[in-house]
Amino acid sequence: MRATDIIEKKKTGNVHTYEELKFLVDGYLNGTVEEAQMSAWLMAVCFRGLNFDETVYLTDIFIKSGDVLDFSNIEGHIADKHSTGGVGDKVTLVLIPILASLGVKCAKLSGRGLGMTGGTIDKFESIPNFNCMLSEEDFISKINTVGAAISAQTPNLVPADGKIYALRDVTSTVDNMSLIAASVVSKKIASGADVIVLDVKYGSGAFIKTLDEAKILADLMVKIGQKLGRRINAVISSMEQPLGRAVGNSLEVIEAIDFLKGKLSYDLYEITLEIAAKTLILSEVAKTFEEAKKLVDASILQGKALQKFKEIIASQGGNPEVVDNYKLLPMGEYFIQVKANKDMGYVKTLDALKVAHACKLLGAGRDKKSDKIDFGAGCTIGKKKGNKVKKGDTLITLYYNQNVLKSRIEEAANYAYGAYTFSEEKVQKERIVANMN
Amino acid sequence: MRATDIIEKKKTGNVHTYEELKFLVDGYLNGTVEEAQMSAWLMAVCFRGLNFDETVYLTDIFIKSGDVLDFSNIEGHIADKHSTGGVGDKVTLVLIPILASLGVKCAKLSGRGLGMTGGTIDKFESIPNFNCMLSEEDFISKINTVGAAISAQTPNLVPADGKIYALRDVTSTVDNMSLIAASVVSKKIASGADVIVLDVKYGSGAFIKTLDEAKILADLMVKIGQKLGRRINAVISSMEQPLGRAVGNSLEVIEAIDFLKGKLSYDLYEITLEIAAKTLILSEVAKTFEEAKKLVDASILQGKALQKFKEIIASQGGNPEVVDNYKLLPMGEYFIQVKANKDMGYVKTLDALKVAHACKLLGAGRDKKSDKIDFGAGCTIGKKKGNKVKKGDTLITLYYNQNVLKSRIEEAANYAYGAYTFSEEKVQKERIVANMN
Repeated sequence: MRATDIIEKKKTGNVHTYEELKFLVDGYLNGTVEEAQMSAWLMAVCFRGLNFDETVYLTDIFIKSGDVLDFSNIEGHIADKHSTGGVGDKVTLVLIPILASLGVKCAKLSGRGLGMTGGTIDKFESIPNFNCMLSEEDFISKINTVGAAISAQTPNLVPADGKIYALRDVTSTVDNMSLIAASVVSKKIASGADVIVLDVKYGSGAFIKTLDEAKILADLMVKIGQKLGRRINAVISSMEQPLGRAVGNSLEVIEAIDFLKGKLSYDLYEITLEIAAKTLILSEVAKTFEEAKKLVDASILQGKALQKFKEIIASQGGNPEVVDNYKLLPMGEYFIQVKANKDMGYVKTLDALKVAHACKLLGAGRDKKSDKIDFGAGCTIGKKKGNKVKKGDTLITLYYNQNVLKSRIEEAANYAYGAYTFSEEKVQKERIVANMN
Repeated sequence: MRATDIIEKKKTGNVHTYEELKFLVDGYLNGTVEEAQMSAWLMAVCFRGLNFDETVYLTDIFIKSGDVLDFSNIEGHIADKHSTGGVGDKVTLVLIPILASLGVKCAKLSGRGLGMTGGTIDKFESIPNFNCMLSEEDFISKINTVGAAISAQTPNLVPADGKIYALRDVTSTVDNMSLIAASVVSKKIASGADVIVLDVKYGSGAFIKTLDEAKILADLMVKIGQKLGRRINAVISSMEQPLGRAVGNSLEVIEAIDFLKGKLSYDLYEITLEIAAKTLILSEVAKTFEEAKKLVDASILQGKALQKFKEIIASQGGNPEVVDNYKLLPMGEYFIQVKANKDMGYVKTLDALKVAHACKLLGAGRDKKSDKIDFGAGCTIGKKKGNKVKKGDTLITLYYNQNVLKSRIEEAANYAYGAYTFSEEKVQKERIVANMN
């Protein structure tokens, strides 16, 4: 078997065998297939696609390229959730305490990753001393005792996907559905959970731009997961404007705690409920959405989810008192309010990427893995789609620390202001969760 | 400018600017653009293509990536010829003496390259002491005195094409017309000639498989060359069976000398005349094909081309007596005749690649640049398309030396025999040169 023949086969629109894909992927990992060959093949895949069987093969080969976590010592279903990424997405922070409080074991492995405003691990780590660098034993033990644990992904999970993802990033071969699906599903399966719910985001603030594409990707990932023996489902949600009312690591932790205290943003509630319900049903805790909703609402209203969040914080070395005293969290020392200089009418759109970029300028994200995040940097959003805006109203409040250059602060404020468009007529708020079919 | 954006641009079917292509090619040469990025772009080009302007830009950028030979010290037109490669293609060996004898200066730069049966340089070098490693001064001086010189390409010509060609070879991105055209034309233009005639071969024994593709490629190369200010034309010729009656380095030299003595294979004559005529017309030595034909025929019949060949051999350090004494050339010590074991009817097809493979098994070609060629190895062909074959007739005679394993000789004989198909009905011989339009 030769790499050039495999590339040629895909280039001319043919279908690969399992052995061909294994030769290519394993060869790339061990160096017998050149980086240039893998990248040519990836580009050919962007044009020709992979069929369902090839995509399942690729996912399976990714999984087998490294370790697979073994949760056989944990009783019952183990749930995991994955989001394709959005601005202000703190769903995991509220979902895990809710599910764990309802008896669903949650094993959350997450990459540190790049991105404008930090990943899930960064958000948890913005709680002082919260330790996400758990050994496998520690991870399992915490799941057994507290019902949930959060850990940064170990380097031995799906190394093939890691290496290929880095290559896709520099060769403009990211946006193929099969490559995305194999990457996501292989990581989730190798992470060991048997119940998986995916949050596929679409819109201007997401990687996937249209609802149709999101449906295709969600459907594909669910089918791959099922084929590989997992209980899996997906939620499709719009990412046109930031989720909730905070963007930035500790600011999102605060919003999450507020949420668990019953101070709900409607959009964060909508999507959290949808994901929680699907997880509860797959985990055989609830039979219907209505039953699941009652459980979720009760968990929040009775303070059980909040209590569970404190337990999780304590379990991972953090101070659970942050829940009652936000001053224990890192906060931006300074803030600037971006205000409306006249009556604007109604917010028509709020560009999530511009808001994220503003936060990144203030230190909330990183470019390189070695960059340090300022956990306190970010923003709170005063006005979202549909809100009426009068002269002097605060649109967005930016938080930062003194190390940020004045010119950057101005640039961030301009981005924040420029994220808005307005309309004189009333603008309808919309549901953000779409139907799968 | 970023490489990923340029890749994305081509991937989505857009047109590059000169600056974008220069950024990519120069960056790849100096290491700021990764090999994986170049290979992804090449694959995108295979799907999306380059338009004419982009192809001209790429050719120009290739040329400017290295040295360009300067023939301003040579008076009159300087001609060069290029073949896209075929089996038994010794046209250059007879064409150059003919043209030089008619007053056309010939500057033949050629790569050593890989291939089943040696390249043009190997063929000349099979003449003992014939030196193709000429300095630029030496090259020019010999063209001035003898009228022609043959040199192995210097490493400083079109380094961008050299590096990209090597990459295309391992990434299955060879077969795009624009990439092929830019590669060929850039090399010819950097080689300094102002009159260029291309021999574009098609068929089972050539890289280009169909006449239509050959026409597209020839037309494209001619237009690029014209756009870049050269007098350029092309010949399209069939490569279904080997050209002439010998394959292998010194065996082809012998056939070339025989040709210059008037012992002509019809197909070698047809194509040589076509290329010579186009060169003579572009060089303003002849006005019409008929006039050119008279000149070529006279040069051969009057022994002028043969005399010029002796001068060229002497000029480059070889012994011109080889022309009268073939025993001075390296020859296979042994031979084996592949014969028909019954009356076969007529040769229907003779697969050029199988014949070449047989010769390569005996040592006539190389796999790696460091491999040594056995100049004496190869074959002479007794029966070609249309010939009648009776029991006992010799189809092919294989020449080799004692270092070749017996099993290899048997394999070569099998390849040679298997290269033939026969027909009971008479088979028409066809012209091998096709019309350009």
